[in-house]
Amino acid sequence: MTDTLQIALDELAACLGPAGYLSGDDRPMRNRADASVGDPVEPLAVLRPADTAQVAAAMAICARHRLPVTVQGGLTGLCGGATPTAGSLAMSMERMRRIEEVDPVSMTITAEAGATLQSLQQAADAQGLLCPVDLGARGTCAIGGNVATNAGGNRVLRYGMTRQSVLGLEVVLADGTVISSLGKMLKNNAGYDLKQVFIGSEGTLGIVTRVVLALVPKPAWTGLAMVATRDFDAAMACLIEARRSLGPALSAFEVMWPDYWRMVTQNVPGCRDPFEAGHGFYFLVEVGGPDGAREEEAFKAFLQGAFEAGLIEDAVVAQSLADMERLWSIRDASAEIEPVLGDHESFDVSMSPAVLGAFVEDVRATLSKTLPEARAVFFGHAADGNIHVMASAPGGTAAIRHRVEEIVYDRTRWYSGSISAEHGIGSLKRNWLSWSRSKPEIALMRRLKAALDPDGLLNPGKVLPPEVTS
Amino acid sequence: MTDTLQIALDELAACLGPAGYLSGDDRPMRNRADASVGDPVEPLAVLRPADTAQVAAAMAICARHRLPVTVQGGLTGLCGGATPTAGSLAMSMERMRRIEEVDPVSMTITAEAGATLQSLQQAADAQGLLCPVDLGARGTCAIGGNVATNAGGNRVLRYGMTRQSVLGLEVVLADGTVISSLGKMLKNNAGYDLKQVFIGSEGTLGIVTRVVLALVPKPAWTGLAMVATRDFDAAMACLIEARRSLGPALSAFEVMWPDYWRMVTQNVPGCRDPFEAGHGFYFLVEVGGPDGAREEEAFKAFLQGAFEAGLIEDAVVAQSLADMERLWSIRDASAEIEPVLGDHESFDVSMSPAVLGAFVEDVRATLSKTLPEARAVFFGHAADGNIHVMASAPGGTAAIRHRVEEIVYDRTRWYSGSISAEHGIGSLKRNWLSWSRSKPEIALMRRLKAALDPDGLLNPGKVLPPEVTS
Repeated sequence: MTDTLQIALDELAACLGPAGYLSGDDRPMRNRADASVGDPVEPLAVLRPADTAQVAAAMAICARHRLPVTVQGGLTGLCGGATPTAGSLAMSMERMRRIEEVDPVSMTITAEAGATLQSLQQAADAQGLLCPVDLGARGTCAIGGNVATNAGGNRVLRYGMTRQSVLGLEVVLADGTVISSLGKMLKNNAGYDLKQVFIGSEGTLGIVTRVVLALVPKPAWTGLAMVATRDFDAAMACLIEARRSLGPALSAFEVMWPDYWRMVTQNVPGCRDPFEAGHGFYFLVEVGGPDGAREEEAFKAFLQGAFEAGLIEDAVVAQSLADMERLWSIRDASAEIEPVLGDHESFDVSMSPAVLGAFVEDVRATLSKTLPEARAVFFGHAADGNIHVMASAPGGTAAIRHRVEEIVYDRTRWYSGSISAEHGIGSLKRNWLSWSRSKPEIALMRRLKAALDPDGLLNPGKVLPPEVTS
Repeated sequence: MTDTLQIALDELAACLGPAGYLSGDDRPMRNRADASVGDPVEPLAVLRPADTAQVAAAMAICARHRLPVTVQGGLTGLCGGATPTAGSLAMSMERMRRIEEVDPVSMTITAEAGATLQSLQQAADAQGLLCPVDLGARGTCAIGGNVATNAGGNRVLRYGMTRQSVLGLEVVLADGTVISSLGKMLKNNAGYDLKQVFIGSEGTLGIVTRVVLALVPKPAWTGLAMVATRDFDAAMACLIEARRSLGPALSAFEVMWPDYWRMVTQNVPGCRDPFEAGHGFYFLVEVGGPDGAREEEAFKAFLQGAFEAGLIEDAVVAQSLADMERLWSIRDASAEIEPVLGDHESFDVSMSPAVLGAFVEDVRATLSKTLPEARAVFFGHAADGNIHVMASAPGGTAAIRHRVEEIVYDRTRWYSGSISAEHGIGSLKRNWLSWSRSKPEIALMRRLKAALDPDGLLNPGKVLPPEVTS
């Protein structure tokens, strides 16, 4: 270690104190990589600031010494966005977990970036309100990470991505400046809406330290049905009718192609097929609202109407919370089928909902022509235009994996889709960014990065592809 | 005119053709100022490009010659954001008015920037869908201007500001680069979400040329009631109950303080007081949904429950479209009371809904102490935390006007509010920006401006306050 590096690290240690600066063997294993990356990397040290002032002071020291920083929340990301690069510091938000306020009149919650999503959900619930952001990692993921990645999840159809719920944001810039815009107003057109720049930038433009989220009234009633149709087109016709007749009560519309359905119901314990016969397509439809009786009536009328119109072949309506859990477990079994698929690649793509069906047929045909032994399953959030693909990469070599990626991303590009609907880019997808973004778009992203972080100190090696020097 | 300027103008004239380049007396009067500014300014010429390629070519010429450009949509803005500055060109989008596509499956509409909001609403309506953006100027304002100003309007409570409906955007940068991100996906986390930078930047960072908006299902039924309560607090209790019991069916909740109410019902023809007695506070509540019978029942139950709880003193439920128009006309009569107020200043401020009542009492008390002869009326969108204030400035001198502004903006700052909820900053409010934005925030805005428009060519003199050179 050079003398100047040691001086910088000593300054950080003095600034953050023993609880805020962990080096050598004290560096926790969990801070060496996020959930998506196999090979851990050794950060120079793990910084654990106690508040915004410490984040700002630490960044000012890092800026002076040109030390890069990888920001970490709950480490549940799926694209390597929180994995340190060699020679960088890890800065974890794990000591900044306070829920500062729930305001029931303005319907807002204010929290530090390291607070888990679940802790926000519980604090909102205690006031009879709902935190609209929800995803499977809720118990571990940090709200700052949800904002930094513009997380999607289970309620996007009803409440939008995380961006839509963010009213206020506090951010520390690369030079240590604190930008505090913690207003609770739904409407604020006083100059540029700076928070929009940081939401979804995956820690590369600033460090989220505090968040104000809009809360919503808690639905008093939820209805759920698993529905079988002849094919994708019939399910999309049901979606259009559901939107028309259920309006904003519609809270989820999750689709499953039959290959996914069979793999789950035949292999995953507890995921029994609720239907007697096989069908061409399946969807899960959820409805929520303030009044049980009225919404239940509308929900039944929708299902009855779709059945009579010949759009639905069969349907199972949940009669209990246990039923709901059982039906959701089929949709949520993607992790459980990973062993069945063996070596595989997972995708999170989006496109116009109108072309989703054609995209899936196209990927399936191209895969079976190019890699006949590969198996692929398809499922996702049809109303959002977001499909998850899991495709086996038989043999698991880097070349085969790349071939599978190439097939899926080429087809995504063909349908003017996005290579990342909700998971972000991180380090794992940045070489594919140009499949969804034009050269002028990527050049403009670089221009923003250079303006906000001219020395490239924040989350190096993430989001933007490496620059080709000619 | 210098030779080099003449050369630049000749290049523009050749590039855009006779229909696209209007100079001298051919410059239409309407392009010399927007609706908010009294004194017209003479732009060097009025550019009227026919398509994105012409916008890009014109900007490339302007960039080469360092010629500033003021972008113009429907010219209905209220803050001087589209008024040319001396020595700048006006670039009007009025020839780019095409609705390019309505996609009923993806529920999107794609249009050129100059298309009127009403033309988008009509195209959506023809497919049984609703364009969520709506404001009084719909017949004249351009969708590009709605996006550039992140317009608010009548349906923010239900569908959010314009930003929330924008799925895709095409923008021309100051150097003529075209950034085309016209995806129809609700979810796209492939790198920075560049469109967010341009939405609400009032033409200072790029020129919006095409827009993709999300459409929503058209509510089949609408209910409306005018409600009288004892005071502001009772109305806010009704708002909380309306959100809980009506859920997302609640589409408007507009509040009126008694001074506004009396001025309108006593002075504006057609705005008769629907109540027999005077009350302490008034609100208009609107509900919409896919099914008349069910929503009407819920709406009646809400009103009945609030009455029985003692929150409501009286209520009038609209029984016909004519009733609805009559009740809305009381809320929409702000222009009609301008002559009653005489010389006055209008404000569009927002803050946490929890402090709105205190803010109004505070402004009223400060005004009556400082300017006893001044009269002020208050009304607005309570659920959004957005209040419009109209305060008379007796005598109408610049000093008196400034004093009135100072009182309202000081109180807004005191309550951590925004000096512009939905109208933007333009040229008229930029000197007040620091009342709602901190020095680091404004410095960061300048950094973004310098990164995207280093020569200051786009909409000069707007949004950002003049830099103080010491």
